[in-house]
Amino acid sequence: MMEANMNNADYQYRVEVCFMPGQFPLYAQDMGIVVVIDVLRATSAMVAAFENGVDRIIPVSTIEEAKAYIGKPGFIAAAERNGEVVDGFTYGNSPLAYVGEDLSGKTIVMTTTNGTKAINLAKDAKTMVVGAFLNLSALSEWLVEQNENILLLCSGWKDKFNLEDSIFAGAVMERLLESGKFGVEEDSSIAAKYMYMSARDNFLSLLKAAPRRRRIEQLQLLPDVKYCLTPDQSRVIPVLRNGELVRMETLVKA
Amino acid sequence: MMEANMNNADYQYRVEVCFMPGQFPLYAQDMGIVVVIDVLRATSAMVAAFENGVDRIIPVSTIEEAKAYIGKPGFIAAAERNGEVVDGFTYGNSPLAYVGEDLSGKTIVMTTTNGTKAINLAKDAKTMVVGAFLNLSALSEWLVEQNENILLLCSGWKDKFNLEDSIFAGAVMERLLESGKFGVEEDSSIAAKYMYMSARDNFLSLLKAAPRRRRIEQLQLLPDVKYCLTPDQSRVIPVLRNGELVRMETLVKA
Repeated sequence: MMEANMNNADYQYRVEVCFMPGQFPLYAQDMGIVVVIDVLRATSAMVAAFENGVDRIIPVSTIEEAKAYIGKPGFIAAAERNGEVVDGFTYGNSPLAYVGEDLSGKTIVMTTTNGTKAINLAKDAKTMVVGAFLNLSALSEWLVEQNENILLLCSGWKDKFNLEDSIFAGAVMERLLESGKFGVEEDSSIAAKYMYMSARDNFLSLLKAAPRRRRIEQLQLLPDVKYCLTPDQSRVIPVLRNGELVRMETLVKA
Repeated sequence: MMEANMNNADYQYRVEVCFMPGQFPLYAQDMGIVVVIDVLRATSAMVAAFENGVDRIIPVSTIEEAKAYIGKPGFIAAAERNGEVVDGFTYGNSPLAYVGEDLSGKTIVMTTTNGTKAINLAKDAKTMVVGAFLNLSALSEWLVEQNENILLLCSGWKDKFNLEDSIFAGAVMERLLESGKFGVEEDSSIAAKYMYMSARDNFLSLLKAAPRRRRIEQLQLLPDVKYCLTPDQSRVIPVLRNGELVRMETLVKA
């Protein structure tokens, strides 16, 4: 039996997990920071893009909005639906598409099935940041220093629960609970930590579950998936300002 | 690491878990049987009531509908909101209220915060049954014999995810997967099994999580909770027919 009593006796702030965008209104109250999570693959792609020099990312809801930026100097238009690059676009939501490129000074305009939808939903939060295994430690270390309630918002898969986002949320939660400063009130938060504790030794084994493996093989996503599940490849924390994602460090300097 | 590859290679039917009523439309397609689950406490109370002789249970959505049956001969009116018996009613959703009573021939009219809401949502399913730890084995044995896709619908807590319903769903799922006849497609189903495997040795330790313990102590629910988490106290499977819950065995005899 795992230790279910994970709460610190005298915590100052809450850290909670919301499993899917549709549940966001039920969890959003009193939350100072919302972390949007779409491990496979939108938020991983965003961190990878910043790591490779991108200046800002504009998340948009529709393919049409993104399309207007195709061929525009200084812009990269990226669009994904159902795990595939949308016709007419060069970029989808694959983080590996950005790795090894010099994207300094460029702006990405991105629309994805799940991730940009969750970002749009959380855009009015006091602070909205983007999380993925790629920036797990940098993000967790920053979060621990904040004096706010924190909501870990999983993007899910087509409005449903997904495992990788929830397990990532559990990973962040574990680090915040260790600090003694944060506690939980919601069953979803306790469950996310259970799942992380079950899966922590081998994230990839999650994919052994037949239906997911099938989809990933069909889409030839395995290199992407391995990359997205490898923690701490970046220190970048993307943060939303005026509808655009920028690096946290840019704000701090400004 | 737990075994995430829980799928049978050549399963005939699916068994899936829906974590909360609001997600039901996303999971309901192609489901022949819906099992409504509200471990704390509506579906536990229903099984306990049948076990103690009740003839039928009419689930209603509003307090007003239940109120009309107060004092009516042959009827028991039961109403719960926020874990407490509604003013003016003798019965809420406590299963222990029915234990040791002879309720032969009586009809219960019941409204609860979460459970009767989920029943109402699933009432158009081809077959809708009620599950709780109290009838875990009887229910699972019956389900294994059916040639249908099965949806385990958790009632949750005020539209949010809850642990006890999800863990119970994982318990049922484990028994169905063992048969080799059933497989899963949804991440929520895999997660429910993870949670059950983590919690199986001691359901009560779940309640050590501070926020839940506080609520349960405030409401003095501990005897109820222990009763609700003790498997296999009944062989009754309540099934919905024409808007009323009756015993499965009544139907088979008829």
